[in-house]
Amino acid sequence: MTAFEAFDRLVDDRLDTWVEELAQYCRFASEKGDIEALRGAADWTIERLGALGADVALVELPGRPDVAPLVVGEIGSGPRTLNLVQHYDVQPAVPFDLWTTPPYEPDIRDGRLFARGATDNKGELLPRLWALEAWLETIGDLPCRVRFLVEGEEESGSEHLDALLDTRPELRRADAALIEGGSITLEGTPYVAAGGRGIIVLELAVRTIAYDAHSSLAVVLPNAAVRLVHALATMWSTDGSPAVAGLDAGIRPPTPGQRAVVETVPLEVLEDIVGEFRPRQLIGGLEGRRAIEALSLSPTLNVQGLWSGYTGPGAKTITPAEAHARLDIRIVPDQDPAEILAALRAHLDREGFTDVEVREIESERAWWTPPDHPVVETALGVSEAVTGRRGFRSVSMPGTVPMYQVCAAHRVPATTLGAARDDCRAHAPDENIRLDDLATATRIAARFYDALAALPEVPPVP
Amino acid sequence: MTAFEAFDRLVDDRLDTWVEELAQYCRFASEKGDIEALRGAADWTIERLGALGADVALVELPGRPDVAPLVVGEIGSGPRTLNLVQHYDVQPAVPFDLWTTPPYEPDIRDGRLFARGATDNKGELLPRLWALEAWLETIGDLPCRVRFLVEGEEESGSEHLDALLDTRPELRRADAALIEGGSITLEGTPYVAAGGRGIIVLELAVRTIAYDAHSSLAVVLPNAAVRLVHALATMWSTDGSPAVAGLDAGIRPPTPGQRAVVETVPLEVLEDIVGEFRPRQLIGGLEGRRAIEALSLSPTLNVQGLWSGYTGPGAKTITPAEAHARLDIRIVPDQDPAEILAALRAHLDREGFTDVEVREIESERAWWTPPDHPVVETALGVSEAVTGRRGFRSVSMPGTVPMYQVCAAHRVPATTLGAARDDCRAHAPDENIRLDDLATATRIAARFYDALAALPEVPPVP
Repeated sequence: MTAFEAFDRLVDDRLDTWVEELAQYCRFASEKGDIEALRGAADWTIERLGALGADVALVELPGRPDVAPLVVGEIGSGPRTLNLVQHYDVQPAVPFDLWTTPPYEPDIRDGRLFARGATDNKGELLPRLWALEAWLETIGDLPCRVRFLVEGEEESGSEHLDALLDTRPELRRADAALIEGGSITLEGTPYVAAGGRGIIVLELAVRTIAYDAHSSLAVVLPNAAVRLVHALATMWSTDGSPAVAGLDAGIRPPTPGQRAVVETVPLEVLEDIVGEFRPRQLIGGLEGRRAIEALSLSPTLNVQGLWSGYTGPGAKTITPAEAHARLDIRIVPDQDPAEILAALRAHLDREGFTDVEVREIESERAWWTPPDHPVVETALGVSEAVTGRRGFRSVSMPGTVPMYQVCAAHRVPATTLGAARDDCRAHAPDENIRLDDLATATRIAARFYDALAALPEVPPVP
Repeated sequence: MTAFEAFDRLVDDRLDTWVEELAQYCRFASEKGDIEALRGAADWTIERLGALGADVALVELPGRPDVAPLVVGEIGSGPRTLNLVQHYDVQPAVPFDLWTTPPYEPDIRDGRLFARGATDNKGELLPRLWALEAWLETIGDLPCRVRFLVEGEEESGSEHLDALLDTRPELRRADAALIEGGSITLEGTPYVAAGGRGIIVLELAVRTIAYDAHSSLAVVLPNAAVRLVHALATMWSTDGSPAVAGLDAGIRPPTPGQRAVVETVPLEVLEDIVGEFRPRQLIGGLEGRRAIEALSLSPTLNVQGLWSGYTGPGAKTITPAEAHARLDIRIVPDQDPAEILAALRAHLDREGFTDVEVREIESERAWWTPPDHPVVETALGVSEAVTGRRGFRSVSMPGTVPMYQVCAAHRVPATTLGAARDDCRAHAPDENIRLDDLATATRIAARFYDALAALPEVPPVP
């Protein structure tokens, strides 16, 4: 690929500048609810896309100033259009005390940039933009039309993305989509994902008494925390695996092609997870190939937060009146959030917990592209070419990205590219990205634009 | 009791002034950890006791400025000495949003004063002091020696009370002790308690992975919240009753006298609790007499707080690495905190939860005076005389007060007096005291001082 010689030199030369740019972007604490920081990050995105030379537009919901706007930036021309599905919001950075350096004061050490958003998604978005900048400067006209769709509610379930896109439905028309995610293993093997899970976030809540009582009455008054504990205990086996009947409702059986792809995912993926998180054992005694299959193909049932009574320092001798658990359930094609919520309700009722409320907070469906689709093949091919290592693909990343909202209407094929490492700590304290990987991701993105334009055919998802 | 005519008039005349004084006292947010507010409340106590004419001393632990000091005030003379066991600290006021008016901005409405500490213990301490003030002004010399022992760590388990008293061991020498607690039912029936439970506060903690993971990995990584839920679920039956073997270790069987007293406690006590807290049903299907017995004689096992993962607003898609529960266990004579903690550890080990840590936070033993002791008889008699209603006594209040530390060394008999109502919301939002009951408590205290001095004999606890 000699066409990229000048390009690759520019990437090396400009990396320091770009890293500084990413650090700037990561200074916005663009968490849900922080309107000012979200607006700051959106404005920064608009300005950066404008500086690139893109046509930039802000898509807002009429009469809803509380909804974080969608930033749209379009650049280039050609017979193919590629949607880049990105976001400028970030996960909450709490608990702050577990960060080595403050989450919104980006710090460079050990060849990495540490900050909330360093990977997810600011550090994945920018290399895809830098690739265009470097292309324009070293190669010339872009080979295809690239459309950035940068939303501000991705980390809270892309609640209004559908409504925002409905105001500009032409934005959903594209030949392919590049979504966030995709990674490089600790050993350097790139992998791409042909899909992502959907998600349901919900809260369980129970009240046992009118208000918190003095705990001396605990011998007679029912404790909300204990009540919720008993309800939750029925929802998982003691080995940690979900025990709610109907959690698998609506699953479309994997095709032989998908099964075959799962067989090719190296065990290294699992080893990296185990090495990083060091669990005593995996859920349900899973190991090896069965764990890889579960990561690709199974729904999850996860407690993300649990709270009741007095949780501050010291002690407070009360019997709590209320208890809460927030759960997320990752779903796969073609599961319907309403059906899964009904199964959970039925489970609780069957177990005698009619008093435990189920409150839906958000949900989105899963979207999978066949893993042998040319767009996925291309993504894997360019990732291998740049890293110089044989990679692999997965049927679905374990996480959730708003592919369904962007791609389902026109059955647009979607893929990821290799970018962050498996120890990037997305969503956790000390989130980071390796500076080297920023250069790699920039190189991979440019090759992908090039190869997509050259594909003889890009069929829609069947 | 014509001797109290002038006294009773003065109580009526001065009540407004005294209520204002209580409001002042309640402005100190003297919660554990708020050194400034604790010191403010201690200074206020010293000044008030000084204004009464008491000899005041501050007892501190050498080299431990972090330990809230004990305020001692002694006044009067005579052959009998009475210890008043009180405190100037308060329970945490959180959650603030459940208070109708701010907890440290006392508000008078509907004939009550609302504030944290209104009952527990500022509104119980002051009437005992006002009784002395009114006595001195309307009757003359006090009939006995009264010693206020006002500590600043009662709500967090009186951790240093023993050590503070050890520096002035003569403070434990007394003929009797008046402790906090005791009450008037909603219908107006006074009751006194001959003892209080002990308490153990502890934390359960478990860690399943090195740090919080992205919840997309929940299909393989063990969730700390789920792990703790399973451990906790083994500790209570689904009807809410404790299921830890050995929780009853060391219980001294109640005497026939104690059993007889429990029989005399009116069901109204339970009805008031049920009316106030409106549980669907009581723990373990308890009702009526059996519930009254449990309130008097049984240990408890209570979750006061439960927390894991992300508990803020919105959502955070993590699998928590750690989970915590804070528990309190109320114990009865002669239970040993160490033995109970060992039983809990053994229970968790037996159930397969060796990975769940048990951390003791504080503990104190129970102290019961025989319910037919003359000091208890006297307390009940004067409460009945002032309220004009037949009262009752209990073997033990359901809660904990530091009687063991003050009384056990010299086997001092202890009792409560009728004071706050059963809907005073001690430890809860909207804590309050009725202004009428402040006058009643002042009158009862004066009669108790008088009657104690007149008792022919005050034997130590056998």
